[in-house]
Amino acid sequence: MGDDAAVVRAGGRLCVTSVDAMVEDVHFRLDDGSSSPFDVGWRALAGALSDLAAMGAKPGEAYIALGVSPRAGEERALELMRGALELASRAGTELVGGDVVAAPVLTACVTVVGWADAESELVGRDGARAGDLVGVTGKLGGRPSRPIPRLEEGRVLARGGAHAMIDLSDGLAADARHIGESSGVCLEIELEKLPLGEDVVGWEQAATAGEDYELCVCVAPRDAEAAAVVDVGLTWIGRVTDGPPGASLRHRGRERRLQGFEHSW
Amino acid sequence: MGDDAAVVRAGGRLCVTSVDAMVEDVHFRLDDGSSSPFDVGWRALAGALSDLAAMGAKPGEAYIALGVSPRAGEERALELMRGALELASRAGTELVGGDVVAAPVLTACVTVVGWADAESELVGRDGARAGDLVGVTGKLGGRPSRPIPRLEEGRVLARGGAHAMIDLSDGLAADARHIGESSGVCLEIELEKLPLGEDVVGWEQAATAGEDYELCVCVAPRDAEAAAVVDVGLTWIGRVTDGPPGASLRHRGRERRLQGFEHSW
Repeated sequence: MGDDAAVVRAGGRLCVTSVDAMVEDVHFRLDDGSSSPFDVGWRALAGALSDLAAMGAKPGEAYIALGVSPRAGEERALELMRGALELASRAGTELVGGDVVAAPVLTACVTVVGWADAESELVGRDGARAGDLVGVTGKLGGRPSRPIPRLEEGRVLARGGAHAMIDLSDGLAADARHIGESSGVCLEIELEKLPLGEDVVGWEQAATAGEDYELCVCVAPRDAEAAAVVDVGLTWIGRVTDGPPGASLRHRGRERRLQGFEHSW
Repeated sequence: MGDDAAVVRAGGRLCVTSVDAMVEDVHFRLDDGSSSPFDVGWRALAGALSDLAAMGAKPGEAYIALGVSPRAGEERALELMRGALELASRAGTELVGGDVVAAPVLTACVTVVGWADAESELVGRDGARAGDLVGVTGKLGGRPSRPIPRLEEGRVLARGGAHAMIDLSDGLAADARHIGESSGVCLEIELEKLPLGEDVVGWEQAATAGEDYELCVCVAPRDAEAAAVVDVGLTWIGRVTDGPPGASLRHRGRERRLQGFEHSW
């Protein structure tokens, strides 16, 4: 359970499952117009698919349990489903089942099942080693309303021998620490190297914004060249050392304390 | 999606997945003491496992997404998890992953994955044929606070050639109709034959109480003797005819209108 997805053996293959829940007024708001139901459905599925991407699994089928509130009503619930279906078709997964229940606020619980033919195709967050380079895909901090989970990139990186990988759902500052703590190493990040998304005002925003769904990956130097060819681009932002387990975030050499989003309830 | 679980092919095997959500103040109440969090966790997993039972699938792994409200708090959420873990250990499944999020009321969304080696081991709700006998497992109407999903019985019945099967989550009156409508046949039920649970005052309660998690099965007469050996017992309560698709419920020959629980939101 250290990774965001669970892996079980199924006959000769490995079944990777991820569950992601999104709750109105906790993860999104509809009443102030900041999220559309379509985007909520898209993001709910994106979050679960992104956990598969971070392990290098091939996406299989998706299931959605929808909690429909009287206030949200049938129309918004259908709009949410349309968002999830649209991403499903783009990501090569299929929504094949689920459940619909009444709930006090609009809620979507998405389960996705992914597959791998062998353990060697998958990567966790606990394998980073001192000497590795740390890279991120794409651009950070943009908080796109319809993020694209990096499924293809994740598979390329996992098969290319990545030692550890995580998706930036909580923001780089928190997620780099998750890799470091799980692996017993220190990820030393040079904040001035972060690839900034459009309209992102600076490295602080890029390092703390969650729901990026870009991937952070640790790769041995000899595999770095091959890793850098992923479609959306890979930027090297630091390296792994024997320092205290976690992450050390520096801007032009000066240590910074930054908090990404932390799960709390 | 006609059945409560979805089936996909995974290599040489079949993967059967069911998702079930339970929401405070919709499916259970904590504040009036009518449900304990332990029982809620148990029942959330039981509901999902019961969908596998109705198809004859072997249970694999379970995943739970827990929505924790400020009012429920950490202690009740843990109690809910303990209930789910207790049933998991009894039912031979394992909780291997999930998600914890904040939510306005206590919510549990359970996904279970089941397996079958071949399509011929599984049964849906759409295969009932005129001439079949209709049976139910166990006793009806008791609404146990910690129901035992009929996994072993479901597998025995499915492998024994059952034509159609469903779990009584909505109550016999509604679920018999689901089989009839899906199969294009009429299930003629003799209400005086229903096996009543302890403290169940009459056939009306037995025919309408949901969350029984007993199985209703349609079997060719030649397979009836073998089917009747299931552990918890099987009672023959009617037969399948070419009548209008659905169910016809009679008490001592007189037609009765009964409503089981219907999903609504």
